[in-house]
Amino acid sequence: MHPLPKVPETEIKTRVRRFQNTLSALAIDGALITQNIDIFYLTGTMQNGLLYVPQSGEPLFYAKKSIDRASFESVIPVVEMGRQRELGQKIASRFGQPKKIGLEMDVLPYGLAKRYLSLFPGAEAADIAFALRQIRAVKSEYELKHIREAGKHLNEIIASLPGIIAPGMTELELSAKIEYALRLKGNIGIFRMRGYNQELCLGMVSSGSAAATPTYFDGPAGGLGLSIASPQSASRKKLQAGEPILVDISNVVEGYLIDQTRMAVIGDLDPELERAYQIAVGIIREAERMGVPGTPWQALYQRALEMAAEAGLSENFMGYGRDQVKFLGHGVGLEMDELPILARGFDQPLEEGMVIAIEPKFTFPGRGVIGIENTYVVTAEGLKALTIAPEEIIRIPEK
Amino acid sequence: MHPLPKVPETEIKTRVRRFQNTLSALAIDGALITQNIDIFYLTGTMQNGLLYVPQSGEPLFYAKKSIDRASFESVIPVVEMGRQRELGQKIASRFGQPKKIGLEMDVLPYGLAKRYLSLFPGAEAADIAFALRQIRAVKSEYELKHIREAGKHLNEIIASLPGIIAPGMTELELSAKIEYALRLKGNIGIFRMRGYNQELCLGMVSSGSAAATPTYFDGPAGGLGLSIASPQSASRKKLQAGEPILVDISNVVEGYLIDQTRMAVIGDLDPELERAYQIAVGIIREAERMGVPGTPWQALYQRALEMAAEAGLSENFMGYGRDQVKFLGHGVGLEMDELPILARGFDQPLEEGMVIAIEPKFTFPGRGVIGIENTYVVTAEGLKALTIAPEEIIRIPEK
Repeated sequence: MHPLPKVPETEIKTRVRRFQNTLSALAIDGALITQNIDIFYLTGTMQNGLLYVPQSGEPLFYAKKSIDRASFESVIPVVEMGRQRELGQKIASRFGQPKKIGLEMDVLPYGLAKRYLSLFPGAEAADIAFALRQIRAVKSEYELKHIREAGKHLNEIIASLPGIIAPGMTELELSAKIEYALRLKGNIGIFRMRGYNQELCLGMVSSGSAAATPTYFDGPAGGLGLSIASPQSASRKKLQAGEPILVDISNVVEGYLIDQTRMAVIGDLDPELERAYQIAVGIIREAERMGVPGTPWQALYQRALEMAAEAGLSENFMGYGRDQVKFLGHGVGLEMDELPILARGFDQPLEEGMVIAIEPKFTFPGRGVIGIENTYVVTAEGLKALTIAPEEIIRIPEK
Repeated sequence: MHPLPKVPETEIKTRVRRFQNTLSALAIDGALITQNIDIFYLTGTMQNGLLYVPQSGEPLFYAKKSIDRASFESVIPVVEMGRQRELGQKIASRFGQPKKIGLEMDVLPYGLAKRYLSLFPGAEAADIAFALRQIRAVKSEYELKHIREAGKHLNEIIASLPGIIAPGMTELELSAKIEYALRLKGNIGIFRMRGYNQELCLGMVSSGSAAATPTYFDGPAGGLGLSIASPQSASRKKLQAGEPILVDISNVVEGYLIDQTRMAVIGDLDPELERAYQIAVGIIREAERMGVPGTPWQALYQRALEMAAEAGLSENFMGYGRDQVKFLGHGVGLEMDELPILARGFDQPLEEGMVIAIEPKFTFPGRGVIGIENTYVVTAEGLKALTIAPEEIIRIPEK
């Protein structure tokens, strides 16, 4: 049907096995997987349909559109879904009537959830989102390969910035040039987030006071944005000498995201901001030291809070004042807001193969946002960076 | 706080009044509005929080982040949300305990819905999504102004295509150039869709056999895409002479989308495809004739089906075979999949001020997709086009 590379069969089989182990541990008879990303993760196709994963035995993808394309791409067997109201009966007769059924309660809309649950009369609903996200948090070599490739493209972008950034250009022009270059390298142009109401275009490309404008976005950097209907990232503000220019950007290869922040400045940066950058670098070095398998997720955040406090920058850390966010980093993969979450209350241990974007940043109202972000994979020897761009602030001569 | 234009106060007041009339008609005591777009529509801010709209009296926006930015942008009064578990009590003491509460059941995730409903013990939940979408379907002059502006930009893009399209360039290169040009004009780079699992980057820029590749996407044109993890629109396929090149693109101004399809060809098009294009143009002319206030939404689709059948193209209409979609057009506004839906089963009447993208298209497997799409506003005198690009096929000389 088409020449696009498929997901290897062993990859899908391993993922399904891990997920079925979880279903078994949670005493869930089967899970009805509905979200496009989760379906892709467990089947190898992103076509429209519903995936039923029994606690044991082979899952089945009930495809709606395109059935032909799903059949071609999926590692899991595919059948035509047919009438939705008959699906419960079909599943019950093939897999047995589930007493406890797993749903992705964090993304599945309420109306759809009620309709799907009505297909399984008497069944108890269980939320399997966090458990599935924990499985997805641990990446395979196949997945790491794509994330590394995405990181290479970001490095090429950073290397090109001295030839692009110039006084008087707008944040929008800078963002558009980066987007265009990444798109030609194969970026899909969609930056997927799982969180309700969260959305992203490229990342946060913003400067000076505009970057310090608070936003709804669940991240440390805000951005003025182009309009109140898009209140984040690049605006029409012009880049000026002496301002921190935040280049917090992502890239997507075969569906896999990477996240990286580097700073640029035209001319010289205020020494207070230079110092804040060094504090951020210090925090990320400390996180690298601590990030071994077994370390609780929250430990890295707690230590970062201490270091920010020692530097007298508590109020500026990860946003300003009451617009601060309460984390240091987040998993990345098929979505931008994956597990682990490096935040208070999460005492789950880091595991080998987890991929984390760590992003210590400081916000100075009216002046800007400064910080650094790398994406790492957790290995037995500690964190290994997947972002390879040099960490030095990019210094553009003032003309 | 910032210089971005705000939504006029009269605009928000009118929207809220219309919504409260609906709540009253449905005997719903109040609605808890949670989705960023709906919140923006009813308040003028897209910051994070929850909006409570009582059946009568002034609504209140409970802001989480950024409270300061929400206070600055919102026409509706803003308070800090505080602890979520106390929100039900706060709402009850200010507005009275709701017996029947409205939720956006089409988008609000199941887990969140359950949590929010637990704040209102004993309250019955009602789905207000369709009713709110019906209100949003009818646009004001303020809204139409932005959509017209978005249409002007698309016309400039179409005018530039003869200088851009060349044999041997990839679909991705063409799409990237269009995206870059639109971005510089102020497009926000995010194409919002309400439907679960639906997503979009620009639209469908695709050619020949790649365009005819079926996808999960709920639209007549598919597209091979860059990878199985992004299975729609532009691929790395090169543009070749004699193929229909589909330029189905959208643009966003102040949050408002427009949707337009034009065709291009390098050299000459197969007479059978030329004929299909004329049939599509005939269908859109007929839709223009029928699209007066009072016409049932489905009437335009039914008539289009008849015309496709008369032309012997039933199997090719709006996708091919079992991958056909069952509509002729869709509302556009803050989202790409708004009401009205020109589809069977929808006998609601067209109303003055509704904005509709009408997109008759034909799919020929292995050969391509051909068709046309305009966005219209319904006026007392009938449909008036908001897309202004010439409708002729763009013919690029073969070198």
